[in-house]
Amino acid sequence: MFTLHHTDGTARAGTLHTPHGDVPTPAFMPVGTQATVKGLTPEMVRAAGAAIILGNTYHLALRPGDEIVRDLGGLHKFMNWPGPILTDSGGFQVFSLASQVKITDHGAKFKSHIDGSPLELTPERAVEIQQNLGSDIAMVLDECPPADAEPDVIRRAVARSIRWAERCKRHHTRPDQAQFAIVQGGLNLDLRAECARELAAMDFPGYALGGFSVGEAPEAMHAALPHCAACLPEGKPRYLMGVGRPQDLLAGVAAGIDMFDCVMPTRNGRNALAFTDAGPVRLRNAKHRRDPAPLMSDCACYCCANYSRGYLHHLFAADEMLGPTLLSIHNISYYLKLMADARAAIADGRFESFRAACLARWNAPS
Amino acid sequence: MFTLHHTDGTARAGTLHTPHGDVPTPAFMPVGTQATVKGLTPEMVRAAGAAIILGNTYHLALRPGDEIVRDLGGLHKFMNWPGPILTDSGGFQVFSLASQVKITDHGAKFKSHIDGSPLELTPERAVEIQQNLGSDIAMVLDECPPADAEPDVIRRAVARSIRWAERCKRHHTRPDQAQFAIVQGGLNLDLRAECARELAAMDFPGYALGGFSVGEAPEAMHAALPHCAACLPEGKPRYLMGVGRPQDLLAGVAAGIDMFDCVMPTRNGRNALAFTDAGPVRLRNAKHRRDPAPLMSDCACYCCANYSRGYLHHLFAADEMLGPTLLSIHNISYYLKLMADARAAIADGRFESFRAACLARWNAPS
Repeated sequence: MFTLHHTDGTARAGTLHTPHGDVPTPAFMPVGTQATVKGLTPEMVRAAGAAIILGNTYHLALRPGDEIVRDLGGLHKFMNWPGPILTDSGGFQVFSLASQVKITDHGAKFKSHIDGSPLELTPERAVEIQQNLGSDIAMVLDECPPADAEPDVIRRAVARSIRWAERCKRHHTRPDQAQFAIVQGGLNLDLRAECARELAAMDFPGYALGGFSVGEAPEAMHAALPHCAACLPEGKPRYLMGVGRPQDLLAGVAAGIDMFDCVMPTRNGRNALAFTDAGPVRLRNAKHRRDPAPLMSDCACYCCANYSRGYLHHLFAADEMLGPTLLSIHNISYYLKLMADARAAIADGRFESFRAACLARWNAPS
Repeated sequence: MFTLHHTDGTARAGTLHTPHGDVPTPAFMPVGTQATVKGLTPEMVRAAGAAIILGNTYHLALRPGDEIVRDLGGLHKFMNWPGPILTDSGGFQVFSLASQVKITDHGAKFKSHIDGSPLELTPERAVEIQQNLGSDIAMVLDECPPADAEPDVIRRAVARSIRWAERCKRHHTRPDQAQFAIVQGGLNLDLRAECARELAAMDFPGYALGGFSVGEAPEAMHAALPHCAACLPEGKPRYLMGVGRPQDLLAGVAAGIDMFDCVMPTRNGRNALAFTDAGPVRLRNAKHRRDPAPLMSDCACYCCANYSRGYLHHLFAADEMLGPTLLSIHNISYYLKLMADARAAIADGRFESFRAACLARWNAPS
């Protein structure tokens, strides 16, 4: 499943092996929530440098339904993405999107955010959905309390997540799908270590850190990551779920994380906010109106190679679909280039100076 | 400007020559109102088979402004479309979109549909805007009353349009831009003939029929087209503005029209309505939910080559941007394939049987 090529301090460069192809790590996974990376064709996602994408189990189970996706050939064929796909378990979306959520050991009962219909997500059902979708990597169902929840709430959620992980492993049958476990525990490092130890004993092919980026300060996450990553088995891929900004990804890589996903590049792109070496750029700002320069002069992405800031400003001012498409392409390209550069820096043993240079650029006054 | 290769009855196949490349005719021009064909990259438009696109002078003059487009390198560079572009004069949009329109011989005063600011469009200003945009083909400013207007209103509009065409020609200076005149006259065929005669005497490089598809029954237009087209100079390109459905295009081709534009393929595509050989298909219909078949089995477009009806239905149900993009690609491809097939049929001297077969397919019960 995973080959480790280089380490540089605790940072790692490796290769993730999946039935739909290899993924160089550290890897960023663009988010294709509803069987599409919003506003982009799969060819655009690939051209931006993506090797693996993420699909959302909760959304796909609700619409179109996992059995329909299965009957139409599985998620890869359905959405015309021939490369690797990771699906989450749906747990996080139940807690963040659904209403009237009631959790017992059996599972989570809730009302659909689309039509209010009553639904249930159990560990077994989370496995079934993902087996129907046919992703290369599936995640176990976990309970995700906010980072600032009461210690007892977090402690009970960890215990339940461990029991649920066991049930997910037992229920899982697809040989062409790897199942990753998720370590919870909030900012309680002892709890994180204990959770990691118990899950490691079950010998999953990969491990994720869940429950970050849901309320805590970024500094608290950055401080906790080295400890949390060190608790995970060394020979297996490590995935930091739902994180984050470019500086958060580099903090994760420094701590020894191999995989990331986040909606920020696409969501911000749709909102006219671009990631650049000079920090965030807001294309709606009138100062770009007559600017013939590309968004970033040394970016090779389709957006920067062909369009001016003046044109991008116009597209957002005129509410044209091509604006969100072009900025999503740029932002995804930016994230993936960052991961490729980090990988090269790790191989060369200069990751910390690379990271320091990135942070200095992003924080420089423009 | 125009080479006539074949005639078949009154139908014509030719080549339109422009500074940005040749265009085989009959030609359909996808509409890029605000310097983008909605939801598509220029590469997608090209791959769908488009050789020439249309831009809207009224929209671009209001936003971003024609001087900004000029300063950013002209419309071709601004929007990254290296092929030929035709721009309309803005007159039709003033009459259909702006408010408080007041027309005198000097020009049209109106309020912007974007912010209500007072503006004026004169024949000279329409020329200047289009010279700033740098389109390959510019249109003269005309007055476009609805087809069902009073005879006197149409008669006065024709007289004014002729005077305005003269002023446009006098004001035009760009040697790399051809200026087409527009014949008005509604469904009054004598008036159409008189208008065409006066404009032909001014020796424009191309001629358009305006004022169709604005209220009259399609049958009335189909009946009027042969007469109207026959009044236009034979050696010059003939353009039927803003028309229409596939059957309307074939009626135009039969009458001897060479160029068409219409928002239907893209607007209908955004609304989940596809043009197919079996007639219109509504992708929002629940019957497509589990359908693994492509939209059209013998269509080579990117949408039909890669996606199922089930997936397209899902994209529209989930309100995903990729749905409008994929259906716009298919619909534009369908229109352009229809024009390519018509051209081949004309060259073979079998256009009327081709047209009859198309109409029979579209009208067959499905």
